[in-house]
Amino acid sequence: MRRALELAARGPYGPNPRVGCVLLAPDGTTLGEGWHRGAGTPHAEVAALADARERGAQVRGATAVVTLEPCDHTGRTGPCSVALLDAGVARVLVAVADPNPVAAGGADRLRAAGVDVVTGVLGEQGVEALGAWLPAVRGGRPFVTLKIATSLDGRVAAADGTSRWITSDVARRHAHALRQQVGAIVVGTGTVLLDDPSLTARAVDGSLVEQQPLRVVVGSRDVPPGARLRGPGGELVQVRTHDPARVLAVLHEREVRHVLVEGGPTLAAAFLAAGLVDEVHAYVAPVLLGAGAGAVGDLGITTISQALRLVPNQVLPLGPDVLVVATPQHPPGGPAAPAPRTSTEEEI
Amino acid sequence: MRRALELAARGPYGPNPRVGCVLLAPDGTTLGEGWHRGAGTPHAEVAALADARERGAQVRGATAVVTLEPCDHTGRTGPCSVALLDAGVARVLVAVADPNPVAAGGADRLRAAGVDVVTGVLGEQGVEALGAWLPAVRGGRPFVTLKIATSLDGRVAAADGTSRWITSDVARRHAHALRQQVGAIVVGTGTVLLDDPSLTARAVDGSLVEQQPLRVVVGSRDVPPGARLRGPGGELVQVRTHDPARVLAVLHEREVRHVLVEGGPTLAAAFLAAGLVDEVHAYVAPVLLGAGAGAVGDLGITTISQALRLVPNQVLPLGPDVLVVATPQHPPGGPAAPAPRTSTEEEI
Ligand SMILES: NC(=O)c1ccc[n+]([C@@H]2O[C@H](COP(=O)([O-])OP(=O)(O)OC[C@H]3O[C@@H](n4cnc5c(N)ncnc54)[C@H](OP(=O)(O)O)[C@@H]3O)[C@@H](O)[C@H]2O)c1
Ligand SMILES: NC(=O)c1ccc[n+]([C@@H]2O[C@H](COP(=O)([O-])OP(=O)(O)OC[C@H]3O[C@@H](n4cnc5c(N)ncnc54)[C@H](OP(=O)(O)O)[C@@H]3O)[C@@H](O)[C@H]2O)c1
Repeated sequence: MRRALELAARGPYGPNPRVGCVLLAPDGTTLGEGWHRGAGTPHAEVAALADARERGAQVRGATAVVTLEPCDHTGRTGPCSVALLDAGVARVLVAVADPNPVAAGGADRLRAAGVDVVTGVLGEQGVEALGAWLPAVRGGRPFVTLKIATSLDGRVAAADGTSRWITSDVARRHAHALRQQVGAIVVGTGTVLLDDPSLTARAVDGSLVEQQPLRVVVGSRDVPPGARLRGPGGELVQVRTHDPARVLAVLHEREVRHVLVEGGPTLAAAFLAAGLVDEVHAYVAPVLLGAGAGAVGDLGITTISQALRLVPNQVLPLGPDVLVVATPQHPPGGPAAPAPRTSTEEEI
Repeated sequence: MRRALELAARGPYGPNPRVGCVLLAPDGTTLGEGWHRGAGTPHAEVAALADARERGAQVRGATAVVTLEPCDHTGRTGPCSVALLDAGVARVLVAVADPNPVAAGGADRLRAAGVDVVTGVLGEQGVEALGAWLPAVRGGRPFVTLKIATSLDGRVAAADGTSRWITSDVARRHAHALRQQVGAIVVGTGTVLLDDPSLTARAVDGSLVEQQPLRVVVGSRDVPPGARLRGPGGELVQVRTHDPARVLAVLHEREVRHVLVEGGPTLAAAFLAAGLVDEVHAYVAPVLLGAGAGAVGDLGITTISQALRLVPNQVLPLGPDVLVVATPQHPPGGPAAPAPRTSTEEEI
C-alpha cells in the first residue's frame, strides 16, 4: 500500500482523485503498477493492468492494492471493478472507500463475484493522500483554503491600500506553491481593483506552469480591460454575487475540488461567516503597520465569547515569517458553532 | 566561567546586575563561590571571598573568575577591586566589562596593582546573563519589552472591548513568567478603565510572589478608587504624561532596568513611534474576531514602504498559540529607521 500511495502522489491535482495501484503475485512480486494521470485517462487499476500486460505478467489470481475503492460506473472510462474481475484478480486491498455515490459500489460488486476485498488498509494515509478531493466529494462542494498574509498587528495592507510586500519572499514562494494544487483562486473585486493581481501558478523561475487554476472574481464591479487577470493564466470567471455558497456551487459544477480564497478582507469575512472555510493559512510577518485594512472584515462578532476559534494544525517558520495552518472549529459547510464560554474570573 | 554564570543566574532581577564569582586555586580547586543577591547585599566577589574565608581556604595567589568587571566605587558596599587586591588575588578573568561609568575602572585598578586581568571570557554568554540590565545601563534608560496578545487578525479585544481571553492559558502563563523578571509593568489609562487589571506577578498557584514590579499607569485620567491596581501587588505609580520618554526617565530614576509595556494599543503605538521598544513579545492566538481594537494604534505609517520591520529572534508554539519575539530594526532609543524599499515589480 505504501508503494500504491507513492504512485498516487504522481498524479495531478484536479477534478479526479489521485489514486495509485499495485498488482502483486501470490508470492509478493510486483506484476504491474499504475496511477491516475488525470481526467479522461485510465484509472489507476486499468493503468496497472495495462502495465502488467506490457510486462507479460500473469494477473489471474493476483492481489490488487489500490488507494481508493475501485469505481463501479462507466464514465469517461469503464468501471474498474469489472476490469479487475475480467483480469481474474483474486484479492483487492483498499485504503479508502469511495465517497462518491455515483462511483461507489466497486467493493460490493467484487465481493459478490467472490473476490476477497479488504478496505481501510493504511486508511489514514489514504485519506491524507486524497487531500482536498475527499472532503470536496463528501461535502458536495470544493474544499476551501483561506489564505491571509498579515503584519504582526493583523493588517493586510497599509493605510493607502499598498500591500507589496508584507511577507518575505520565502513566505510568498511557499504560498505560491499551493496555487499549483488548487482548481481555482478566488478574490473579491476590491482586491482586483486595488492590487491588479495575476493569480497565476508560476514555477520557481517565474514561468507559468502548464495547469493553471481558474481565476475567479466575486462581486459586481467589472474587471478592468487592462487588468493582469485578462493576461496569460487560467480562465477568468466572474461570479456576480456576494454569496460564497453560490460561488462554491458554480465551482463545484465545474468540478473544482479545492478553492484558494486569497482575499481581500470583505470576501474572507463572507466565507468565514458562512462557515465555508475549511482551513486557514495565515502568514504572519514581523512587521507593524498600526493602520490599514485588517485581515478579516466584519464577522458580526461583538464580544469575545463569540470569537471564531480555530484548531492549529501546523506552525511553520518561513524565513522571518510564520505560517499558521488552522481549522475553524465548525464542521465544513455547517454554521459556526458557538465558542466555548471561557471563565473571565482569572485576573489580568 | 560557566560555573560563575550559573551562580549569577541565582541572583534576583532588579536594579543591580546578576553577577557570579568563583575563586580558584592555582591547581584549579574551587576556594569559594558567590553571587549577588540583590541591592544592599555583598557583591559576588565579596561573597566569594567570604565563602573562601568560611571554608578556611587560602586566597592569596588565587584566580577570581567573575561574570562582570569588579566595581571600583563605594556604593552601599565597598569597591570589589580593592577587596580582591586586599585578599591577594593574582589573576582575574572577566566576562563583561562594566558599562556603568560610575562603577567601571575595576580592571584598571587591578592591572595597575600588578594583577593579571583578562576580559571577554565567554563574553557573549556573559552579556546574555546580564539580560536587560546591560542595555539599560548602557542606554541610560530601562530596556523595554512590548507585549501584545492578539487574534490571528491582529485584534487585542472584541468590538465591545472584551479581551478575556484571546490567548490560551499556556500562553498567559508564559507571559506571566516575564512579570517576575521586570521592574515595572506599564499600561495606559484606557486599559485600566476597560480591563481593571491587577498587574501582579503571581506564582503558578496564583499567589503573589515576594518581589512585585511597580505598577505604572500612563495618562491623565484617574485610576478608580476600587480598581484592582489599588489592591495587593507592587507600588502603584501614575505618570500623567503622554510622552513615553518621560515615563522611562521616571522609571530610570527609580533604578528600573526592565519595563514591560502591556498595552493597550494607544500606549503601544506611542512607545513604538518614539523608537522606545527594544523587543516585542507577540502572542498570536488562532482566533478570528473581524472587529475590535488592533494591537497597535496609529504609527503614522501610511504606505507599505514605511512599515516598521522587526527581526524575529524566536518563534515558540505555546499550546494552540504562537509567541513571536522580535526586535524593531532601529537602535534602542534612536528614531525609527526608514524601512528598506522593496521592489513592487513582482506580480501577485
Ligand atoms: N495581504 C493579503 O493577504 C491581501 C490579500 C488580498 C487583498 N489584500 C488587500 O485587501 C484590500 C482590498 O480589500 P477589500 O475588502 O475591498 O477586497 P475584497 O474582499 O477582495 O473585495 C471586496 C468587494 O468584493 C465584492 N464582494 C464579494 N463578496 C462580497 C460580500 N459577501 N459582501 C460584500 N462585498 C462582497 C464587493 O464588491 P462589488 O461592489 O463589486 O460587488 C466588495 O466591495 C487591498 O488593500 C488589498 O491590498 C491583502
Ligand atoms: N490583548 C492585549 O494584549 C491587550 C492589552 C492591553 C489592553 N488591551 C485592550 O486595549 C483596549 C484599550 O485600548 P486603549 O488604546 O484605550 O488603551 P491604553 O493604550 O491602555 O490607554 C490609552 C490612554 O492612555 C493615555 N495615553 C497614554 N499615553 C498616550 C499617548 N502617547 N497618546 C495618547 N494617549 C495616551 C490616554 O488617556 P488619558 O486621557 O487618560 O491621558 C489614552 O486614552 C481594551 O479593549 C483592552 O482590552 C488588550
